[in-house]
Amino acid sequence: MIMQGKQLTKLVTRLESGGRLPAELYARTGRARIVWITRPPGVGKSSLIDRLIDELRRQGKTVGVAVIDPTSPISGGALLGDRLRMQRHSEDEGVFIRSLATRQHHGGLTDSTPQIVHALDAAGFDVVIVETVGTGQDEVEVAEVADTVVVVLMPELGDEIQRAKSGLMEIADVLVINKADLFSAGAARREPRSQNRGEPRSPNKGEKWERPTIHTSAKSGEGIATLCGALDAHHAYLVSSRQLARRRERAARAEVIRLLQSQMTASILRALEAPQSQTILTNVAKRKLDPYDAVGKLSVRILGSNNRSSKHVARSPR
Amino acid sequence: MIMQGKQLTKLVTRLESGGRLPAELYARTGRARIVWITRPPGVGKSSLIDRLIDELRRQGKTVGVAVIDPTSPISGGALLGDRLRMQRHSEDEGVFIRSLATRQHHGGLTDSTPQIVHALDAAGFDVVIVETVGTGQDEVEVAEVADTVVVVLMPELGDEIQRAKSGLMEIADVLVINKADLFSAGAARREPRSQNRGEPRSPNKGEKWERPTIHTSAKSGEGIATLCGALDAHHAYLVSSRQLARRRERAARAEVIRLLQSQMTASILRALEAPQSQTILTNVAKRKLDPYDAVGKLSVRILGSNNRSSKHVARSPR
Repeated sequence: MIMQGKQLTKLVTRLESGGRLPAELYARTGRARIVWITRPPGVGKSSLIDRLIDELRRQGKTVGVAVIDPTSPISGGALLGDRLRMQRHSEDEGVFIRSLATRQHHGGLTDSTPQIVHALDAAGFDVVIVETVGTGQDEVEVAEVADTVVVVLMPELGDEIQRAKSGLMEIADVLVINKADLFSAGAARREPRSQNRGEPRSPNKGEKWERPTIHTSAKSGEGIATLCGALDAHHAYLVSSRQLARRRERAARAEVIRLLQSQMTASILRALEAPQSQTILTNVAKRKLDPYDAVGKLSVRILGSNNRSSKHVARSPR
Repeated sequence: MIMQGKQLTKLVTRLESGGRLPAELYARTGRARIVWITRPPGVGKSSLIDRLIDELRRQGKTVGVAVIDPTSPISGGALLGDRLRMQRHSEDEGVFIRSLATRQHHGGLTDSTPQIVHALDAAGFDVVIVETVGTGQDEVEVAEVADTVVVVLMPELGDEIQRAKSGLMEIADVLVINKADLFSAGAARREPRSQNRGEPRSPNKGEKWERPTIHTSAKSGEGIATLCGALDAHHAYLVSSRQLARRRERAARAEVIRLLQSQMTASILRALEAPQSQTILTNVAKRKLDPYDAVGKLSVRILGSNNRSSKHVARSPR
């Protein structure tokens, strides 16, 4: 390992509160495999990651984990659950686990996840796992930083989960059906149709990736070795098909867009602090001024002479 | 009604695909009561809104409803469920219901919900209801367009819902515990401690709003009249305490920020299309260039001479 636990903890804390990843660390990234593990809300907290860490360690791989906690944006603060759950790895220097509170500010622009993934990558971990609860919306975009996206499902619990699921399915490279140890009896009947395709294998050159569906039980450990095999197979596929380079270009693009948006939002908020801006906003609230005309007036303040006509707002790409 | 159904349908469709609300319509807004109804994911689809529409109509109020559908950002398209569910109101000219697919693009910036709320307001509806499934994150910010925020809960189903709930509770003006007609037996035991405070009343001047907790059953219609009474009481409170004006200033601010962000994102994406920008992104992917330095170089293209030093990125407010 390049960085020690304490040093890395400090760095992650700094990044989490908006700090910048040192350029010399960024230069050292790109060697870890970035695995994004997500599941729809309502799919019970499982010890799947815990099991996965065990298996990866058995293979001699070091593992960095970022658990993204969807806590309240107002009260903030990451719940301790995940940290406690995986505490037994805390003595192992080959494992680093960090719970992150995501605080969204005007569209999640200040999310520091990509920087933290870089930090774990630069620290020398072989595998970097990011665990999120996905609603099928935001994380589709956030998952762009990943090499491999693993979607964990459980027999469905309701309408919204069904919806979130379909959004998540579209981005999955590996699908895991984690046995609902809690609801097992009734749940088994409602389990989505799917079958284990046996041991996943790397496709030959030019072949497309056939997404495996893996049945696991975090309780018994069943299927965890198969899951690790699928991660290896997907990585081999990414390399042989040259998809890895393409995914990393996509990740770089997504990260740069986010940083630019973050910078722009900071400029917007600064501009709104001016008394003249306050007057503009009050006039919008009083219906004396149209929001688009307000945007036109404020753009001048933000962009200087380079502002676009307010008509362009209506044409923003979808 | 100022606008007929067909005309309004056309306008909403145009707004949904990024069109601009005509300034003369914006000038006509501000008269409707804007009620935001949200519930954590996993809380079963109920016919609560349906019941609420019945009650408001019985009182002679016209109702415009926007149901926000958290569908996949990739495949898109609003599920028909909500539309079908409330179809029986389709003959009633005093009711307009529209399902909206929210498609998030780089942080949900192109969300057209505020514009659609304005359209329903301008069309002359007495009450405009926005229904969402909340994860306790994004919607806290989106709910800023509302006068009254109603949070609907049900006996909890899991960890994430518990978390989403705590985020939602913080923004609730009115709390509804909707009877879980499906899970009733087991669920009742786990129901969060709360009591009906009886008929809600408007506080006297200077008094603080005491958030009522209302128990409803969408199946039997129990509690729906009480919920309507709570909405009236909260509106009266907003007027007497002058909070209404403050909430509308907050809404105007949130809307203008979103429009500005949308405009900026459009500028960013345009700038990234240039071949020189592509080279910059490729160098970031290859770890030859730090993402922050890339942002510095690209800012010049986007902002012209007015760009900020890339150091400011790390200092974006949280």
